Amino acid sequence: MKGQEQSIAVVGAGSWGTALSIVLANNGYHVDLYARDEEQKRVINEKKINKRYLSGVELPDNIVAHTSYKDVLEGKKFIILVVPSHAMRETARNIKPFVTENTIVTHATKGIELNTYKRMSEVIHEEIPALFPERILVLSGPSHAEEVSRKMPTTVVISGKETSIAEEVQDIFINNDFRVYTNSDVVGTEVAGSLKNIIALGAGLSDGLEFGDNAKAALITRGLTEISRLGIEMGANPLTFLGLAGVGDLVVTCTSQHSRNWRAGYMLGKGKNLEMVLEEMGMVVEGVKTTKAAYHLSQQLNVKMPITNELFKVLFENKNPKSAVNDLMGRVKTHETEWVFNDYR
Amino acid sequence: MKGQEQSIAVVGAGSWGTALSIVLANNGYHVDLYARDEEQKRVINEKKINKRYLSGVELPDNIVAHTSYKDVLEGKKFIILVVPSHAMRETARNIKPFVTENTIVTHATKGIELNTYKRMSEVIHEEIPALFPERILVLSGPSHAEEVSRKMPTTVVISGKETSIAEEVQDIFINNDFRVYTNSDVVGTEVAGSLKNIIALGAGLSDGLEFGDNAKAALITRGLTEISRLGIEMGANPLTFLGLAGVGDLVVTCTSQHSRNWRAGYMLGKGKNLEMVLEEMGMVVEGVKTTKAAYHLSQQLNVKMPITNELFKVLFENKNPKSAVNDLMGRVKTHETEWVFNDYR
Repeated sequence: MKGQEQSIAVVGAGSWGTALSIVLANNGYHVDLYARDEEQKRVINEKKINKRYLSGVELPDNIVAHTSYKDVLEGKKFIILVVPSHAMRETARNIKPFVTENTIVTHATKGIELNTYKRMSEVIHEEIPALFPERILVLSGPSHAEEVSRKMPTTVVISGKETSIAEEVQDIFINNDFRVYTNSDVVGTEVAGSLKNIIALGAGLSDGLEFGDNAKAALITRGLTEISRLGIEMGANPLTFLGLAGVGDLVVTCTSQHSRNWRAGYMLGKGKNLEMVLEEMGMVVEGVKTTKAAYHLSQQLNVKMPITNELFKVLFENKNPKSAVNDLMGRVKTHETEWVFNDYR
Repeated sequence: MKGQEQSIAVVGAGSWGTALSIVLANNGYHVDLYARDEEQKRVINEKKINKRYLSGVELPDNIVAHTSYKDVLEGKKFIILVVPSHAMRETARNIKPFVTENTIVTHATKGIELNTYKRMSEVIHEEIPALFPERILVLSGPSHAEEVSRKMPTTVVISGKETSIAEEVQDIFINNDFRVYTNSDVVGTEVAGSLKNIIALGAGLSDGLEFGDNAKAALITRGLTEISRLGIEMGANPLTFLGLAGVGDLVVTCTSQHSRNWRAGYMLGKGKNLEMVLEEMGMVVEGVKTTKAAYHLSQQLNVKMPITNELFKVLFENKNPKSAVNDLMGRVKTHETEWVFNDYR
């Protein structure tokens, strides 16, 4: 156990925010966790569970939920933000009064802001300009919350522009079951983590249509290529897409039953429409918003993203999913060469 | 339908050889298929099934099995070799008398020769030196035989040094359900296809130990890195590992229940020893031999391959699988940076 003296702030008591709180609490930190409403706060503090988002896992005593930002944030060096991407800007505004020159903000949100197409660290920096960019980091990687909360072996990446600061964040999270690596490619880590949800939707769609493992593997491979292309245009290091935040997270999201983006795609493949799917899930499906953002970004930056394009049509233009996947697999015999990164224009 | 006038030779009537024969037969070619024994030949020709290797799929009438190399090979322009890696040298010797300057040999075998550590195209060239290297190609990619035989959408790669020849092979295989891409990196395609079986064993091991999806994703990511490192040392193009023959095949082999290498690893993880596993499978498990080959290659070429090393210990030195996976995940807290390709020495 380490750092018993120190308290850490976690904003967002969804499944991932709760799982990360458990990691920190198990490492010996006191965690002040921001919950959205009194009822969630009461259940967490009294029953020691997060029934709605992470049922069946007992919460350590050193996690305490609050509904006041002040109670969560005041005097904290480390602030962990785990809110849906559409709530990031407002959250950043809310935490601003508590940020000092010593604060380190790490977010674990996989998404791009709608309409602005900004990455989460950009949104945070815009709202809290006094916080230097090297003090805004991102945690990402193949990490289903359910498994992390049950101490199953997991590896993640902390990306930050300044290695010494990334290592401070690495220090608070790392333990034998939760392996933390650092890297300095914030753009790549954010883009990879966000855009893999698009491919997960596509993989779910393919599975819902019962197209098989070969087709899904093709989608994942092509998907990795197209999100890398966009990432590189946005300034990412191509190698990030080969690492835990890239291939690693993509694989787990596309092949695991835990993944809500895969599940949403699966239901679409089974013939449900977007409205029905979102209602049935009752959780945020980041991939839906990210598809829209990536679609517009790809047009802006003139990057070919065939999977994103087809999904955009399925989600927002009522294209038949079967035709979409068929169009992706290609129905016309042509001589085609596999270029991977070379054909990105 | 095309090419009704032409006959193609397929050597090897296992599941993959049979599935590729079905693709060719459905494209309108007559297929002469080499079977190992009279009984297999009889069942294929009379019952139109390959009961042992691809049960439940009816074979088209234009696939005819033989047990004589002459009947299969004489006068053929296209020869497809789909035999286990340990049988490739002998097979190459057997087909040599029927090879002319017009012959194009394509193999679809994923493995490295034991003891010599040679790739399959090298073995073929050594045994048939008169056959120019550009007329020896490899077919690879994410393609479970069962799905291909049932016409489920599949993408593969044909690699050959000379594009025009690769396109000839592409032509005989391609159809709406079986999408064929070409590339020129024979080394990368062979190494990626062979070494992914090691990682599939590791993924199965992790699943057998119930380590979860996060751990498996980490293994797949690290596995891709280490097989790429070895491949690059052997002369491969790094991009091949990002394509269908790399990531694509790796993902399908590590996450699909169809994969026999995954299944072998799974049984090892459940506490069976190698002998029991191989007996129970009753099929060649290429990954076991490949682990040995890659282990020795990595020492020869001085390339770090931690997953291969641990698997070698589990398979051949009776190391406890749980300790092996734990050692891979790392039990000691250290500051580690994610480098992907950069740390390969």
